[in-house]
Formats: sequence, C-alpha cells, structure tokens
Amino acid sequence: MADGKRIALILAGGIGERFWPLSRSWRPKQLLPLARGGRTLLEDAVDRIAPLIPAEDVFIVTGPTLVEPIREAELGIPPQNVIAEPAKRNTAGALVYAAAHLLAERGEEVLGAILAVLPADHLIDPPDRFIADLERIMSAVSELGGLGVIGIPPTRPETGYGYIERSDEEPTPGIHRVTAFREKPDNATAAQYLRSGRHSWNSGMFFWRLRDFLEELALAAPAHQAVVAPLAKAIRSGDEAGARERFETLPDISIDFALMEKARRVWVGSASFEWDDLGAWDAMRRAWEPDERGNVRFGESVLVDTEDCVVVNDTGRDGTSVAVIGVQGITVVVTDDGVLVTRTDRAQDVRTAVKALRDRGVGPL
Amino acid sequence: MADGKRIALILAGGIGERFWPLSRSWRPKQLLPLARGGRTLLEDAVDRIAPLIPAEDVFIVTGPTLVEPIREAELGIPPQNVIAEPAKRNTAGALVYAAAHLLAERGEEVLGAILAVLPADHLIDPPDRFIADLERIMSAVSELGGLGVIGIPPTRPETGYGYIERSDEEPTPGIHRVTAFREKPDNATAAQYLRSGRHSWNSGMFFWRLRDFLEELALAAPAHQAVVAPLAKAIRSGDEAGARERFETLPDISIDFALMEKARRVWVGSASFEWDDLGAWDAMRRAWEPDERGNVRFGESVLVDTEDCVVVNDTGRDGTSVAVIGVQGITVVVTDDGVLVTRTDRAQDVRTAVKALRDRGVGPL
Repeated sequence: MADGKRIALILAGGIGERFWPLSRSWRPKQLLPLARGGRTLLEDAVDRIAPLIPAEDVFIVTGPTLVEPIREAELGIPPQNVIAEPAKRNTAGALVYAAAHLLAERGEEVLGAILAVLPADHLIDPPDRFIADLERIMSAVSELGGLGVIGIPPTRPETGYGYIERSDEEPTPGIHRVTAFREKPDNATAAQYLRSGRHSWNSGMFFWRLRDFLEELALAAPAHQAVVAPLAKAIRSGDEAGARERFETLPDISIDFALMEKARRVWVGSASFEWDDLGAWDAMRRAWEPDERGNVRFGESVLVDTEDCVVVNDTGRDGTSVAVIGVQGITVVVTDDGVLVTRTDRAQDVRTAVKALRDRGVGPL
Repeated sequence: MADGKRIALILAGGIGERFWPLSRSWRPKQLLPLARGGRTLLEDAVDRIAPLIPAEDVFIVTGPTLVEPIREAELGIPPQNVIAEPAKRNTAGALVYAAAHLLAERGEEVLGAILAVLPADHLIDPPDRFIADLERIMSAVSELGGLGVIGIPPTRPETGYGYIERSDEEPTPGIHRVTAFREKPDNATAAQYLRSGRHSWNSGMFFWRLRDFLEELALAAPAHQAVVAPLAKAIRSGDEAGARERFETLPDISIDFALMEKARRVWVGSASFEWDDLGAWDAMRRAWEPDERGNVRFGESVLVDTEDCVVVNDTGRDGTSVAVIGVQGITVVVTDDGVLVTRTDRAQDVRTAVKALRDRGVGPL
C-alpha cells in the first residue's frame, strides 16, 4: 500500500444522551433524522466523505449493539467495515481498536495510510468546503508528519467546547502549528478566546498517518500503544475473548486527553464550512431556521402564544396530540415513551434527568 | 308525596375541556380521580349528598354518551336515575329536562318536592359542613318559597366567577335575600366585591320546590317553562324523537342567565365548607398540597430544578417517562395520547388549544 492511501474512521459509538427522549441506546443521536431533508447524521457523515475516500476504505467504529442497526441502514459501505469495539473506552479506546483492526485486516502496509477520524453526529455544510478543508489537512499531515486537527472558528464565547490555540507557524498555507489544547473555558476566558483570532473550537476531526499516530501514542499514552499489537493479533485470530480482555485494560479517556494535548507536533486547519456539533436540544435553534415566532418545530403540535421554543412530536400524525400554551424559551420533546420539558438553556441537564430516570428504573431508556 | 320530600339533581353533563388531555369526551372531568384518595369527583358528589337524600331520590343528569360509563361506575344509585338529556342545552335545558323527567316518572305530586341542584365536578370539604349548609338552605326554601343558592365567601379577587350580592334581609338565620347576580367582574370590581362582605361566588348549587321553580320559570323564561309539560308527556309515552324535538327548540343558556338573575325571590346561604370548582389546571395548586418546592405531582416524573409546577403523568409506571428541567410555574400533563405544556396561569387557554387540535383533526379528542 503506497503512502498517501486514505482511510476514514467514522466514530459512531455515542448515544447522544442529551437528545433524550428522541435518542435512546438502540436509536442514538447519529441515527436520528436530525440532518436536513430528514436524513440521519450518520448518512450525511458517510456521504460527505465519499468524494475523498472510496467506500471500501470507510470504516464506522461503534458499539456491539449498534453494528446491526448501522449495517441495516445501508449506507453504501461494506458491512464488514462497521466494526464494534468490545467495550466502551472513549475515543482513545476506539482509535486504538480501529488501528488494531486495520493492522489485523490489512497488515503492516496500512501503517503508511493517512487516516481521517470523523465524528458521526455533527451537522456540516456545505459538503464541498468540508472536502476542500480535509484535502488540505490530509495533504499537510502526509507531507509534514505529526497529527492534524480541524479547528472551527468560534462564533460565540462557548464554554461547552475545548479550544485549540495556534501559533503563527504556517508551514503550508492555512495550516498552523498548535501550541496548546485548552479545556472548556469559563465565560471570561471564552470571550478572550473569541477575540484572540488564535483560538478555534476542537472539532474532534483528526488526521494522521497511522505510523505517526502509533509513534506519538507510544510517547504520550504508552499503555494504549502497547495494546495495539496484541489486540491486532487477537482480532486476526478471531480470539474475541482475548481481544476484549486486552481492550478492557484501557482507561476510559478521550483521544484529546490521552494524545492530542501531549503530542509533539500538531497542526490545525481552519474549517471554512458551517459546523454544529448538535450537542443538545439548544443546538436545534442554531441548526434550523426558526419560524417568525422563533419556534423550531418537528411533527404536529398546536402552539398558543408560544415563542422561541423547540417543539418535537415524534409520535406521528395519528399519535399523541401536543399543545403548548403561553411559554417562551422551552423545549418540549414527545416520543411514544418519553416526554421532556426543559428550559432550552438548561438542555445540558437532560443527562441529569436521564440518569435519575435510569436510577429509578422508570420506563425504557 | 308530602311537601318536604327531597330530591337531588347532580348535573354531570360537561366535559371539563380545560382539563385536557386528562379530560376527554368519554372520560370527562367528573369521572377523573381528582378528588382525595384517588376518587372521582362524581363519586364524592353522590356520597356527599347521601346523609340528606336517599339513593332512590338522587338523579344524575348527563349526556347520552356518558350514561353507560356513569352507570358502570356503580355509584350506589338506581341505574334508571342516571338520565340523559337528548341534546346539550346548558344548565337551563338540563333542569327543564330533569323537571319533565320527574313529572313523567312520579306524577304531579313531585311538584311539592324540594330539589337540590348540585354540580358533579367540584371539590368540597368537609362533607358534614356541606350537609349542614344544605339542610339550612333547603329548610329555608321549603318555608319561604322562592329559589335558593349557596354562595361561597370569596378568598381572592377572582375574575373567573359570577358573584351573588345579598341584602341585610335575613328571614331565617344565615339565609339572606339576594339583590343581584353579578357577571364575571374586572379586576377592580372583583377586589371591591372581596372587601364588601356582601358578595359571594355563585356555586351553581340551587335549591327550590319544583312548583316554585316552574312558576318562576314561567315568568323569567316562558319558552323553557312551556316545554316542560309536553316534554314530560313525550318521556312518559316513550316518544324519544318527540322529546328530542321539543328539547332541541330550547336556546343554549345557563340557569343563572335564564332564571336566577330575573327571579323575584332568591335566597343565599353562605357556605361554611371549603370549595373549589377545579375550573382548570391552575386549581390543582389550590386544591392539593404542593411539596416543599411548590410542585403538585400525580404519577411518576423526574423534576430537576423545577418549582411551582403541576406535573401529571397518567400513563402509569410502565408508561411514558416524563422529565421536567429548570422551569417554574408550568403545568405539564401527559396521557397516552396527549401532552399539554402550559404556563399554569394560562390554563384557561387550554380550550383554545383543544379547539385548534380539533379543527386540525389531530389525534383523538
């Protein structure tokens, strides 16, 4: 396999719990029709990368329970390219597992391939700018080595994201050297980042030659790197129990924390596309055009004197009747077995409510 | 039949549409378990009158579709005492129909009986005070003639009720002569009524000898009175079509408007019991004890940072999970086929929403 071969790893392991009650363990956020035209976010993610990477080199990394639902979604990639991590070990675990899987399946020559690591559940538009930005960062890591990341130019002092700080070093046009990864800032710091012009949001899209990834991993997270070869061996020999046993020794940490913050050479390319991570229900008011009263609506509902609300009725026309009266800034989501009413700016707390419901064993979650 | 025989007419024809989605045409407010101990309001209404009037003299007047559900509720009164008006003609129509039914069934001697007209869907406590107050007003109309009404001493400047204004004339202790019925007042007038000491809320509980009722009706609403005899004849002969035809000629007006406001002699007895008409969801916060955060809850739900809310989950433990986050002063009601989210102080507008849903033909109503 020649250097420059490209492989996409679409990370689709999460549930997107903050989209409860629409998201569930068996119907996670990436399989919800939250993309334009009623498409799922995962469909869009797969189609978006197609102009750059052929289907046989696009992999989806997910959990065991989601392999079948994703294969059944017929996304146009080979069924065996939907791969299941044996356990949940965050993004660092997912990327270690994917590396081992590629080595097991394709042998050592895959070490020369350039990988694009892409979240499955973000809203991105337009696709051609996405392709152009990926082309630039993938070429850069191919030429320069090191690790690449797409940074999103901030449009608000967001305190819910990690930030990437860049230097003036620009080895190739539009690609800057990263000086630091910054954790979620407080309000004042977020405002400063917004003004600085040197900070961008961490998109979670990463790019590297597989060999460079493993080398950096050996320095930054040796326990993770040490698992790759034995894991590949277990996968190759069909030893599922052995693979799981190895994998479960890994700590549950993100690739940002395990690797990106510590790596020696990281490059950032600035996104020219519109992006939203659809983190929670409040994102719906950014991602979708509100009507003249500021409401974003999916499905049937009756609104009386209601403004700046998100109202979702996923029960269908012959399903539940939904009426909302005299409220502002509220999100109402109705499904066949769950109802959420939240102040939209408290949408992050849906996780708290989901945890409480789960603890009580109330209803299916 | 001797003068002094007592008969109760419990009016149970309404739907209580403002309690949507809990109230429905097939499960109206009076059949909802809104009374203490999970009992229905109608159960309480029937039991409450039992110490004063024997079961064979207690009648429930309702619509044709509710006769069977009410009979099946086994309230302890004879099944044939649940009687159906042929059409909806408001409280004036219901009382004309009941008068005709009594004449048809019991003959002219029923004209001497004292009737107690009682709404089926109010919350009243304690029952013994209710009985004492009724004893007083029924004795008064038996002795004095004329029409009686129970007035509720106002506890707030309520603009949603009609008021009764009394004079100092007190022919028997605790029974005053009414000088006027006042329609729903504006805020300033309601505040003045609250201070006056002469105004009480119109409870909709009326008392009269049937003969006196028909005499007053002949003067105040001759069209209504004129229907009674032919209607009784049609009922007696089993001529349902004829009865309906007669009945449908009546206008759709309340007994307050048709008769009480115009009658020559009306007496008011002041209620010594606690009373709430449970007019809409906002009444739940008065009628039930809120918890330490000001919330009133029925059924399972998870509340996060939520205060002064009414949250009803009528779908049962294995039903819909309900979560409410970060809101104040909101009512959330979830049933198997309807979800209501309203600012509690806009609960009157539930009717608007129900109308809109009905107009759209969305879901079963």
